[in-house]
Amino acid sequence: MNRDLLKPAPAPTLKDVSKIANVSVMTVSRVLRGKGYVSKEVISLVKEAAAKIGYSPNKLAGALASDKSNLVGVILPTLSNVVFSEVLSGINSALSKTDMQPFFGISDYSLIKEEKLVEGLLAWRPAGLILTGLEHSERTRELLSKTSIRISEIMDYSDTPIDACFGLRHTLAGIETAKHLLERGYRKFGYVGSFLKTDLRAEKRFNGFAETILAAGAQLVDKKSDFGPSSMQMGRRLTKEIIDQNNTIDALYFSNDDMAAGALMHTIANNISVPQQIALASFNGLEFLDALPLKITTVKSPRFKIGELAGLHVSTENKSADSLGTGTPKKVEFPIEITIGDTT
Amino acid sequence: MNRDLLKPAPAPTLKDVSKIANVSVMTVSRVLRGKGYVSKEVISLVKEAAAKIGYSPNKLAGALASDKSNLVGVILPTLSNVVFSEVLSGINSALSKTDMQPFFGISDYSLIKEEKLVEGLLAWRPAGLILTGLEHSERTRELLSKTSIRISEIMDYSDTPIDACFGLRHTLAGIETAKHLLERGYRKFGYVGSFLKTDLRAEKRFNGFAETILAAGAQLVDKKSDFGPSSMQMGRRLTKEIIDQNNTIDALYFSNDDMAAGALMHTIANNISVPQQIALASFNGLEFLDALPLKITTVKSPRFKIGELAGLHVSTENKSADSLGTGTPKKVEFPIEITIGDTT
Repeated sequence: MNRDLLKPAPAPTLKDVSKIANVSVMTVSRVLRGKGYVSKEVISLVKEAAAKIGYSPNKLAGALASDKSNLVGVILPTLSNVVFSEVLSGINSALSKTDMQPFFGISDYSLIKEEKLVEGLLAWRPAGLILTGLEHSERTRELLSKTSIRISEIMDYSDTPIDACFGLRHTLAGIETAKHLLERGYRKFGYVGSFLKTDLRAEKRFNGFAETILAAGAQLVDKKSDFGPSSMQMGRRLTKEIIDQNNTIDALYFSNDDMAAGALMHTIANNISVPQQIALASFNGLEFLDALPLKITTVKSPRFKIGELAGLHVSTENKSADSLGTGTPKKVEFPIEITIGDTT
Repeated sequence: MNRDLLKPAPAPTLKDVSKIANVSVMTVSRVLRGKGYVSKEVISLVKEAAAKIGYSPNKLAGALASDKSNLVGVILPTLSNVVFSEVLSGINSALSKTDMQPFFGISDYSLIKEEKLVEGLLAWRPAGLILTGLEHSERTRELLSKTSIRISEIMDYSDTPIDACFGLRHTLAGIETAKHLLERGYRKFGYVGSFLKTDLRAEKRFNGFAETILAAGAQLVDKKSDFGPSSMQMGRRLTKEIIDQNNTIDALYFSNDDMAAGALMHTIANNISVPQQIALASFNGLEFLDALPLKITTVKSPRFKIGELAGLHVSTENKSADSLGTGTPKKVEFPIEITIGDTT
């Protein structure tokens, strides 16, 4: 069948259903909304008629009438890292318990792209928006200040979010990791990162890390970083470079686990002993670390949970919102907990 | 500021913009749609006014009027595997060149969940739907047959899709991998999988694989499979089990790369030589394989490309569609190409 030859028939309406079921439009509406009394016989009559002609309720109509759709806009920096797939799973999990549907855009860590996406998503009159990070353009802030919808900023933490936020303090994650490495006696550090200048949370971790080791009189010997998404391949390549060029480095800090796992692969392939010759520490606590020959020291980010809380927040009615009572919380700061593995 | 204390103000309208800019509603509409002649001065006046009050066009109104939204529904089986994040990136890339927005649901490889999602997404009058796989429930097929929107079935290939399909033949992928292993002289095989019974494409690969080795007089010694999403951890655990219980197996075939990478980690951690003691082969050709100490033999699935083609297909006007001329293709079968690595 060539479907393109079919003239696009208009979608079946309530009226079409009522004709086939031979009942009033009001009755059809009652049955399909599950409201008001209708006899069992009529219910099955209407449901059969609706199924027969493929009637599905038009959510656009209801949304336009109330000037609010049941869509939740989600803006993520990338989908090439499993971190954000897990956030999305958490959001999806929370929303799947409601009649809300997530729709999304990818900002590639660009505040300008984020601004365009916010503008585009707001045109759908979403029930809420979930944004990654606390940094936004002036215009994004202006657009958001004009709406009354719920907004969740995720993955980072601030006491003064636009509306709600769920995440941890990345500067603190860097500080805690540095303290751990200093306690273990490491003194000459290297940093290996990705998304140079645009992954603002990785930047915060690096800053906290660098300040702490410098304040302790230790040394930041070298820093290798590249544009584009983090990956095991990039981690392996940059680790080779930084080790080959600096034979004094005794510990490496990574922007995230993908990068550190790539480093571990480099040490395995080249018979470099970890942590004897070089220590490795990173951030995220991805589950696949459990499958590696050595457990990498890292800080766990509660990705699914963050997505779930943000989803709950934006899908809850404004009136029931509070951070103490029965409503969903508006701010959650997750503590920094280092998982000490075999690599430090 | 406690935003919940603010009364949700109605969203600004064209009329509000026209009042502030002191021009007619028609002029505002012309400027914002970029259609018709308006002087430069008036254009900047209107744009300033719109920005000032945070006006954004209401896409719901246009969608309701035409009974079609610019949303594209996407149903994926899981987000816990980077395969589907990459598909989503491809879809997003194609749609970001249009004014369409993807919205999605996760089926957890369940045809019943898929059915519910199709029903839910159709209620938004989407411009198109992208479904994973060729298998759908009776009711899903019925719902889809009643619509005239574009539908892409992705990741698998059939000559007779509902509307369009983009993928490769998974049975053939299994057959080709078996042929390669038989040519290398392996005779005693094991299979390690995930999403038992529900990942239908992995099942097809297994069936093609098993039939080919049995037809060649070789042996399928054991099969380990588990429920739930594939992962390196699951791959490592099941590989340990199958090797510990069967010391005659000389080659393992995996449902996908995550599982095979976990197996490689097990061999590294336990000093098992690959491929001398055991060969490993899998499916997907994920990029992170390049970072591993040994390259795993696999079959590449063009994930981003598939997403991109599906996005292009559903976002193209019906009338320009054909599989030969200037339109976007309706069917693309990708060839099976084995990437022979170090593990076979």
